[in-house]
Amino acid sequence: MEVSRPGVLSFALGLPAMELFPTAAYAQATAQVLATDQRALQYGPPFRPLKSHIVKLMAMRGIECQEEQVFLTSGAQQGISLLARILMDPGKPVLIEELTYTGFQQVIESYRPEVLTVPTDPETGMDVAAVQTLLEQGARPSFIYTVTDGHNPIAASMSKAKRVHLVELAKQYSVPIIEDDPYGFLYYQDTPIPPLRAFDDQWILYVGSFSKILAPALRVGWIIAPEALTASLANLKEASDIDTSTLNQRAISCYLDAGHLNTHLPLLRREYRRRRDAMLQALERHFPDSSRWRRPISGVFIWVELSTEVDAGEALKRALETERIAFIPGQAFCVNHGLRASHCMRLNFSNSSVESIEEGIARLARVLRHY
Amino acid sequence: MEVSRPGVLSFALGLPAMELFPTAAYAQATAQVLATDQRALQYGPPFRPLKSHIVKLMAMRGIECQEEQVFLTSGAQQGISLLARILMDPGKPVLIEELTYTGFQQVIESYRPEVLTVPTDPETGMDVAAVQTLLEQGARPSFIYTVTDGHNPIAASMSKAKRVHLVELAKQYSVPIIEDDPYGFLYYQDTPIPPLRAFDDQWILYVGSFSKILAPALRVGWIIAPEALTASLANLKEASDIDTSTLNQRAISCYLDAGHLNTHLPLLRREYRRRRDAMLQALERHFPDSSRWRRPISGVFIWVELSTEVDAGEALKRALETERIAFIPGQAFCVNHGLRASHCMRLNFSNSSVESIEEGIARLARVLRHY
Repeated sequence: MEVSRPGVLSFALGLPAMELFPTAAYAQATAQVLATDQRALQYGPPFRPLKSHIVKLMAMRGIECQEEQVFLTSGAQQGISLLARILMDPGKPVLIEELTYTGFQQVIESYRPEVLTVPTDPETGMDVAAVQTLLEQGARPSFIYTVTDGHNPIAASMSKAKRVHLVELAKQYSVPIIEDDPYGFLYYQDTPIPPLRAFDDQWILYVGSFSKILAPALRVGWIIAPEALTASLANLKEASDIDTSTLNQRAISCYLDAGHLNTHLPLLRREYRRRRDAMLQALERHFPDSSRWRRPISGVFIWVELSTEVDAGEALKRALETERIAFIPGQAFCVNHGLRASHCMRLNFSNSSVESIEEGIARLARVLRHY
Repeated sequence: MEVSRPGVLSFALGLPAMELFPTAAYAQATAQVLATDQRALQYGPPFRPLKSHIVKLMAMRGIECQEEQVFLTSGAQQGISLLARILMDPGKPVLIEELTYTGFQQVIESYRPEVLTVPTDPETGMDVAAVQTLLEQGARPSFIYTVTDGHNPIAASMSKAKRVHLVELAKQYSVPIIEDDPYGFLYYQDTPIPPLRAFDDQWILYVGSFSKILAPALRVGWIIAPEALTASLANLKEASDIDTSTLNQRAISCYLDAGHLNTHLPLLRREYRRRRDAMLQALERHFPDSSRWRRPISGVFIWVELSTEVDAGEALKRALETERIAFIPGQAFCVNHGLRASHCMRLNFSNSSVESIEEGIARLARVLRHY
């Protein structure tokens, strides 16, 4: 991808900060597993001690679940992909937001389902009233997909009232919801609102991941779903890649045994909050008065709305050429090829130092002065 | 799976021998990568040095290819799954063997394509004359799938004449072939016949893996395909699981840098040949005169045809109950729910010691005496 080429200061991708990876502790866990556990390099069933750790992690998010409801995946992307493929019904539409994570759009594109959309409010998240209207009008989607916390791309965290309302709709109309939660542990206030899954264990299919809280290179994530779905998930997972790296499962479990995550998560939250605040201050200082953004309370993105006459795609070209700065223009996330976000940009703050953020935002602002 | 429960002596699954994994060398490679390469835990593009190693490995199999034709996957299973999903055309049948690897049957089952089948000869492999007849009669499959070497389940290695013939048919009728080669490096004679891909680089889509030559828990494999397919593969791969574990890619590459595979492969071949020979001798000594098998020249299986009145599924139940021995009955591999192999069994020899093989075959023979 052009936006990740060397020499470019990139606010484009949603990468975690490399320099914060707990490399030494993870190396120690891997070495220990390889030295003591002969089965670590063999095919193997999902590792139960890791499932047990995930049950405890979920409790930290306010979710009560059992090991039998934990299904291990090769990252959250595989989680949303398996769920969508199982739930998709050729005769039914899917219901997503007008602005949706591109990786999810990729999941459904080859199946070409009818796609119903609702707007997203940058402050309170998905427009649940619009969901209700569609359902009342008779729409029966095979599922709803959303990112409840640290929304990608719009950076909202759904309000509690909307969560409760959305879960009620799912139950009332028997519509499953895929709740994609890669950023849920990266919250920047004291008491985060629990995910949808905390309010219902039948219709909410939760997807989590170690990518943003430990390291993406391990490709380990999970689904929390009713046991009734396990057989279908296992069959499709086996057909896709047999199993999730046994070695990585066991090394993560060993890392968690040692209690490292209890200090690592606060460190991530502290550092990412610093970076978020640095970006907010730089935007305040340098960006045109006509631009708007909100302070995200979770996740790794800030969503900026520029003056409506600015074409962010065009601005990206200029930013790359003249200032070597990258971001993702809003229309990249538009479903149904809409252009409702052509004046918007998604900025990532987790993968740049405070210094790079200050410099990069100043340079990006210079580009915007041309409009 | 019942056949892998503890206490059971299992000839069922196609597992490599755990005690032969190069655990210390791989642990060393992982430690080195984590100590020196900060990007090892991040998302990342496919690791070029690993592709370069794969080009050299392919040369050892008689295949000439470029790095640009190497596509990294989460194991061979993902390779065959991605290729099948890209090639499948709703209006066209697929062409496979009457006895086909169950993991491939799982790949296509949710798409419910029309399935054309041809027989497999236990000595010379796929019935290529039958393929020719189908094509001459007008069949235009979206692809053909086969395991050329160490066939799963039937243990044949395709004769050279058939390979040449099959490749000619693929070219003449413009039908792509998915060549699944997980066992290709496990050959037990001096000069193995090169894979189909060695005879054509346009219609043969080759799938390889580190699972059987290094360790399955790493979930790293590869496709060799024309560059024209790369964009589709990359799109579907990204939608499936974003990327193949960066850490495992780099650790494997580091392991290969050190040249370890040059001693490890001969060790595997030597030890697996010993186990194969032990199983052949035990079969000779204990099995009923009415049973037939051949000496496989590659792979990890022996295919045994019992007297036609024996129901191998029934024999498995009895073997588990009375002797605690497991194997896979032939009908498990039958496509279109046929029962043409109900008197056959697939026996794995790679995952048991010579002693266990001798004892297990004697015990299994006791079960067969009831028929």
